[in-house]
Amino acid sequence: MDLKQFVTVVPDYPKKGISFKDITTIMDNGEAYKYATDQIVEYAKEMGAELIVGPEARGFIIGCPVAYALEIGFAPVRKPGKLPRETIAVNYDLEYGVDQLTIHKDAIKPGQRVLIVDDLLATGGTVGATVELVEKLGGVVAGCAFLIELTYLDGRRKLENHNIRSLMKY
Amino acid sequence: MDLKQFVTVVPDYPKKGISFKDITTIMDNGEAYKYATDQIVEYAKEMGAELIVGPEARGFIIGCPVAYALEIGFAPVRKPGKLPRETIAVNYDLEYGVDQLTIHKDAIKPGQRVLIVDDLLATGGTVGATVELVEKLGGVVAGCAFLIELTYLDGRRKLENHNIRSLMKY
Repeated sequence: MDLKQFVTVVPDYPKKGISFKDITTIMDNGEAYKYATDQIVEYAKEMGAELIVGPEARGFIIGCPVAYALEIGFAPVRKPGKLPRETIAVNYDLEYGVDQLTIHKDAIKPGQRVLIVDDLLATGGTVGATVELVEKLGGVVAGCAFLIELTYLDGRRKLENHNIRSLMKY
Repeated sequence: MDLKQFVTVVPDYPKKGISFKDITTIMDNGEAYKYATDQIVEYAKEMGAELIVGPEARGFIIGCPVAYALEIGFAPVRKPGKLPRETIAVNYDLEYGVDQLTIHKDAIKPGQRVLIVDDLLATGGTVGATVELVEKLGGVVAGCAFLIELTYLDGRRKLENHNIRSLMKY
């Protein structure tokens, strides 16, 4: 299946000059959604993943069905103030300014093999912060999986010691 | 399986006097997460669901694996500005003030049977707005499924003509 057929390219979103890759038209199609998920499930098996971690909110859309298919847990990474119990936080750079991501302190067992899943690998800011959160809690990053990789933004640079799988490249 | 065992009750969150039901400790446990999801999958089958719709972000955590299991689509309901293409919007009341939810205009086919899924039925504000969005697009609300229902807040009142399934009641 050619997944790119199901991606809707939205010109000038979120701002002029950016051609946004909209994945909701993959999710909206049961067959395409299952196909995409199953590719990541296979990768998760290869990497021996014991837990899926994904940043909100699109990381949930991709990562949760992978956890379900493997009957393993899913731990959400969220913006500050969104998780109800004790968290740890990591700062990461945005184009203008700094943002923060958090995870529950007890979300990962030391030594647990974690697959990080998100929709998009762009500059690697979000996933880099997620790797840091996982490692701070003693987890082992077994791999990072994305639906889409924007290769010209070279997000892989931020993940150089990690195994990466992206289903589509632009 | 007694799912309540896996819910963490967090006192005084998000503010004093509220006892928050944290579901991340269900998701973190592969067996409990699968069990909870499968209950909703069965309900979705009974109701003849052809599409799953869930509001961000916890609705994604519950709804996406259900869509995957049934090999049907998932359409996200999001806060304004988060969906890249043409949307419709509905306002709903918060304790103080008003908020808005949106959905892509082409997310639902007219007549399509939609299961709405979220983590929590509290006052019913979010799900009521989601029902409105689905019906505005010509979808048929086949049912509404929740992990948890706070019965004392009587959110069912807002959904009186709809079929509801909640896995846990408090």
